[in-house]
Amino acid sequence: MTREQLTQQILEAKRSKRLSFAAIADALELDRVWTTAALLGQHPFDAEAADTLVELLELPEDADASALLQEIPMRGSFDQLPPTDPTIYRFYEALQVYGPAIKALIHEDFGDGIMSAINFKMAIDRVEHADGDRVRVTLEGKFLPYSW
Amino acid sequence: MTREQLTQQILEAKRSKRLSFAAIADALELDRVWTTAALLGQHPFDAEAADTLVELLELPEDADASALLQEIPMRGSFDQLPPTDPTIYRFYEALQVYGPAIKALIHEDFGDGIMSAINFKMAIDRVEHADGDRVRVTLEGKFLPYSW
Amino acid sequence: MTREQLTQQILEAKRSKRLSFAAIADALELDRVWTTAALLGQHPFDAEAADTLVELLELPEDADASALLQEIPMRGSFDQLPPTDPTIYRFYEALQVYGPAIKALIHEDFGDGIMSAINFKMAIDRVEHADGDRVRVTLEGKFLPYSW
Amino acid sequence: MTREQLTQQILEAKRSKRLSFAAIADALELDRVWTTAALLGQHPFDAEAADTLVELLELPEDADASALLQEIPMRGSFDQLPPTDPTIYRFYEALQVYGPAIKALIHEDFGDGIMSAINFKMAIDRVEHADGDRVRVTLEGKFLPYSW
Amino acid sequence: MTREQLTQQILEAKRSKRLSFAAIADALELDRVWTTAALLGQHPFDAEAADTLVELLELPEDADASALLQEIPMRGSFDQLPPTDPTIYRFYEALQVYGPAIKALIHEDFGDGIMSAINFKMAIDRVEHADGDRVRVTLEGKFLPYSW
Amino acid sequence: MTREQLTQQILEAKRSKRLSFAAIADALELDRVWTTAALLGQHPFDAEAADTLVELLELPEDADASALLQEIPMRGSFDQLPPTDPTIYRFYEALQVYGPAIKALIHEDFGDGIMSAINFKMAIDRVEHADGDRVRVTLEGKFLPYSW
Amino acid sequence: MTREQLTQQILEAKRSKRLSFAAIADALELDRVWTTAALLGQHPFDAEAADTLVELLELPEDADASALLQEIPMRGSFDQLPPTDPTIYRFYEALQVYGPAIKALIHEDFGDGIMSAINFKMAIDRVEHADGDRVRVTLEGKFLPYSW
Amino acid sequence: MTREQLTQQILEAKRSKRLSFAAIADALELDRVWTTAALLGQHPFDAEAADTLVELLELPEDADASALLQEIPMRGSFDQLPPTDPTIYRFYEALQVYGPAIKALIHEDFGDGIMSAINFKMAIDRVEHADGDRVRVTLEGKFLPYSW
Amino acid sequence: MTREQLTQQILEAKRSKRLSFAAIADALELDRVWTTAALLGQHPFDAEAADTLVELLELPEDADASALLQEIPMRGSFDQLPPTDPTIYRFYEALQVYGPAIKALIHEDFGDGIMSAINFKMAIDRVEHADGDRVRVTLEGKFLPYSW
Amino acid sequence: MTREQLTQQILEAKRSKRLSFAAIADALELDRVWTTAALLGQHPFDAEAADTLVELLELPEDADASALLQEIPMRGSFDQLPPTDPTIYRFYEALQVYGPAIKALIHEDFGDGIMSAINFKMAIDRVEHADGDRVRVTLEGKFLPYSW
Repeated sequence: MTREQLTQQILEAKRSKRLSFAAIADALELDRVWTTAALLGQHPFDAEAADTLVELLELPEDADASALLQEIPMRGSFDQLPPTDPTIYRFYEALQVYGPAIKALIHEDFGDGIMSAINFKMAIDRVEHADGDRVRVTLEGKFLPYSW
Repeated sequence: MTREQLTQQILEAKRSKRLSFAAIADALELDRVWTTAALLGQHPFDAEAADTLVELLELPEDADASALLQEIPMRGSFDQLPPTDPTIYRFYEALQVYGPAIKALIHEDFGDGIMSAINFKMAIDRVEHADGDRVRVTLEGKFLPYSW
Repeated sequence: MTREQLTQQILEAKRSKRLSFAAIADALELDRVWTTAALLGQHPFDAEAADTLVELLELPEDADASALLQEIPMRGSFDQLPPTDPTIYRFYEALQVYGPAIKALIHEDFGDGIMSAINFKMAIDRVEHADGDRVRVTLEGKFLPYSW
Repeated sequence: MTREQLTQQILEAKRSKRLSFAAIADALELDRVWTTAALLGQHPFDAEAADTLVELLELPEDADASALLQEIPMRGSFDQLPPTDPTIYRFYEALQVYGPAIKALIHEDFGDGIMSAINFKMAIDRVEHADGDRVRVTLEGKFLPYSW
Repeated sequence: MTREQLTQQILEAKRSKRLSFAAIADALELDRVWTTAALLGQHPFDAEAADTLVELLELPEDADASALLQEIPMRGSFDQLPPTDPTIYRFYEALQVYGPAIKALIHEDFGDGIMSAINFKMAIDRVEHADGDRVRVTLEGKFLPYSW
Repeated sequence: MTREQLTQQILEAKRSKRLSFAAIADALELDRVWTTAALLGQHPFDAEAADTLVELLELPEDADASALLQEIPMRGSFDQLPPTDPTIYRFYEALQVYGPAIKALIHEDFGDGIMSAINFKMAIDRVEHADGDRVRVTLEGKFLPYSW
Repeated sequence: MTREQLTQQILEAKRSKRLSFAAIADALELDRVWTTAALLGQHPFDAEAADTLVELLELPEDADASALLQEIPMRGSFDQLPPTDPTIYRFYEALQVYGPAIKALIHEDFGDGIMSAINFKMAIDRVEHADGDRVRVTLEGKFLPYSW
Repeated sequence: MTREQLTQQILEAKRSKRLSFAAIADALELDRVWTTAALLGQHPFDAEAADTLVELLELPEDADASALLQEIPMRGSFDQLPPTDPTIYRFYEALQVYGPAIKALIHEDFGDGIMSAINFKMAIDRVEHADGDRVRVTLEGKFLPYSW
Repeated sequence: MTREQLTQQILEAKRSKRLSFAAIADALELDRVWTTAALLGQHPFDAEAADTLVELLELPEDADASALLQEIPMRGSFDQLPPTDPTIYRFYEALQVYGPAIKALIHEDFGDGIMSAINFKMAIDRVEHADGDRVRVTLEGKFLPYSW
Repeated sequence: MTREQLTQQILEAKRSKRLSFAAIADALELDRVWTTAALLGQHPFDAEAADTLVELLELPEDADASALLQEIPMRGSFDQLPPTDPTIYRFYEALQVYGPAIKALIHEDFGDGIMSAINFKMAIDRVEHADGDRVRVTLEGKFLPYSW
């Protein structure tokens, strides 16, 4: 069994049990953005969470599903650039329009360096608004100065 | 003169006058992320801001620089996918790792639809932290439900 | 079962039952363009339509086909750019020839912004004509002004 | 002088004279979508329109601008696929989501064949709407049945 | 069963029965170039030809093979550009060397427009020649003038 | 001066002198398809034709234009695959639809081998037809059998 | 069974029987470079060689393996450009460094034309050398002059 | 001046002086394949050869042409893969057809390793033949065994 | 069985037996970087190591696993460029930033040539550091001077 | 003046003054790998080093060369993937062969995370060896554990 096949089984079990990603994250007592990414094959779970997940989703025990969930995966979600799905594309579009501006202002504020995507967290929130509620996505990563 | 040539002149004037993007935004009384993107050729300025900018940066008046700054540009920043600059790449990497998770959770929270990249704003902030300050990038766009 | 596999089953059932897309849309009391796109895996159905569809096409009930039809899919139809099929390519060709003109005129008529592809509908009609009937494709989407 | 260089001069003259594409089309007594595409280098003008255009925009006469405007251009607008500009991208996105559905329904309505992109016209209209005006783009081309 | 799977079965039956494409075309009383393309999945057969083909090649009747053969396929043969096979590549090479010349001369002879690839036929002939026989490929399509 | 720059000068001289490709071919007493391709930079001219051409088009003599016209060029016309121009694209589309059929039938008729694109000629003709005249493009190349 | 599946079976039989490509070529009394390419799916075998091969490698007789080996294959080995394998890449690298030089010198020696890759043979030899033996790859193809 | 600009000047001087690559190689007393590649910007010349070349081709002395010719260049000839020129493409095609066979036989003859493209030489010869002379290209490189 | 399928089985056996790559390398008495690459399908094992590995991981004996492990593989790890996994991408990023500098300094130190990737070894070490331990990757390859 | 134009001037001044990268690094009292990358446009210089460099290389003072050298550049060296130059390609090839092994072993040694390419240094050394000296490239970066 590969991680991709296991992800497929996770999605089928989630569908069959009518579970949301948030509900699974609650059951694991983990952040829901991180958990969703991990369920989709982008992060490893620790042993306890992996075991809980196998039990919760009734994943096949004999196929070493828990061990596979604990392996550090080969990360990356898209075969095709840019991603075609409109919900995801809009973030890519924001990079096309604002990417050099983000770079310029990180450098103005922090000097030469980057926002870490490793020491990093992300949140998705609903912002209520009279003209229609808004999606707020907050990316926060440690500033890493270029250092030789 | 094309918008790319004018952008190049803007950057040379900014360098020569030792101005920051934030200082130019202040002079225009506009948001600094928006202004930086606009200076880099991704948004048009209104007539007043364009005129102020021509004066502030001493752009060539005979070349219709103000009119060109008011034209709606052909947007997009990268010839090459993914972008090679590390500071920008990290945002692209976050999409590779978290893109499908963002999609899944927007759908869990809001139903079928997207975060608008048009009715949209973005902020870049410094979050002080004992282990090293952090870059916080906040994307906020109106939720647009799929509607036929 | 993935959505791609279910789409394949839908197409086989449609073929076997000699149903047109229009007939399925009628049975579901939904717009036929929207329904065709949804059947091809680009939109989710609501619970009632999904159940009707499972019954109409005799899709496998034990595989949670109805639940899968209600999931918001990863959208996008083409692995290869541009699409090779001539009927679809002509629309791509229209974009190659008229794309910048469409952009220029949306901006002249509406100002800076886009035609939404989310709050959006499309119709396909036959226009009778002495020199040969014509295909009319009407795209209509809400204008979204750039707004910060 | 190449057609690309002439297009650049046309855009500079248009900017300098504060002319809209619609105004130029009116002066030429031609459809404004067609004219905009032609001005952007996608269609040739006939001799009369070319001469009028040289006069109207004060294009350089010695460079055979009128003759160049009458040459059939090498068509195509985008170096990069898909186009990065959001206003244009939305049409590409509509193809990603609805392309196979359009194909299926053209075939259901007309049989095997295509909508011509050569015997073809296009209109852009504003549809007033209480929730915000809408952009309507109408593509209409002759149906061409596959015929051996 | 997809059309690709059916094409594979057609090729296996053709091999097993030691039939040429020309012999199948004769049995169907159809042009051999058209028939070969159709057998390879690029054109639909009419009902009578589809039924004859199922019988001739002993294709599986229960899998709705005849109905599938009558469906209008998603056209296009190559995943990779340019095609790697030398026999096919030479035609692509001819386009690389003569493509702009063909365009220029169609325009000189016919004005602005295209040779239709829909109202179109093609023949492959042997031209006897003392220095070695020659392959003649004749493409003939209706001229379609650009018309708004 | 590069061959690309010389091609540009040839096209400007042709435009300025109101010459057709056919007229230039006549002046050189050469086939018009071959000549057009050569003028567009895909074939070298022999010394006599090159000298005639320099005189006819009044190309700059000091820049060794004649010598450059006699050099064997780096062949190939398209930076982008497939070509975007509709008149040229139709030939590419014919390859997408009929390429494998052409290969299969060349092999049925001639055995294993290719149609040469080197020992090769091409003609473009007008075929009169009641339903609209037709473009006929004839490719003819020597059959080259695979031989070790 | 496709040719790719048969190639896989050939490689498994070769491994299982501990045969070298040279040994198979000897058994078939054919050139070993040609035979290796043919075994890897790039050339058809004649009937006698195909039958010998089926017997030698104990390929499945009921699957028409001999007939499939006699079919002219769709040629081409690489999905990805350039090839990633270092042993193959070095030849590609030689083309990157020496390709234009080869072209220039073929033209100096032979005039305008190509080295045929169809009427063509290749040899791989070991050249003993005090500093380490050398690989010699000799490509030899008929010169084909450009001829209209 | 860049190496690309100098290459352009070399080609213009060679054309103007009616020199062949072979003649330049003779003047430098260097191998003609190596020299041609070097003149085209793929190898550095030693000081003596560079000085001779500047004198022979009357390259501009003030622009440090000799020093530039002695710099080790950024190697690689093609922006586009595969190369479009037919004379060069045939070598690429040989790789597509015979690449895996070459790899297999180098491994059979030499074990695991590669033919060096660095400790390497190449020759181009004319092989007289009754059916038409042949081009022979001999690649010879040191075998480098994989060694840790 | 292909090498890819065997790699998958190796990874499953490794997971199931809770073995590290280092432990397998120890069991084989081979370098751990080399062994890891070989286990992942990039190097062949010698007969003794292959047999040990089949026993250690209980790979299927009847499928000629040992013989397959001894075959020289088609090397290369990535279908997509650049690799999307962040841990691997950082090395690619280092090449984007430092690649031309590495080239320039190898040339300054050694003259024209390359670092061999064949006569080559690599080590991965932990460097303890007060501010956080560091990863040290040492690449060492024989210098190969360009030699004709 | 852009950074690319300034890099070109730096290289011309370096050539004209017969300076090595190492000599420039010595004059700036900076690491030579870092300095070479910075001179090639991949890092900014601090004010003192920039001023020294302008003086040392006699760069144009009026063009704000020092200020431009202090700007944080848009990083990335290659337009084309993979890089075609053999000296640089070997590092890319090492990634193709050893990339997944490096990832696996970083994870075995350090857990989930990456080697930073920002808090990072690199050295190039000559290792003397009886069989030919060796190039050693040492990459060392801080380990960054994935942390939410």
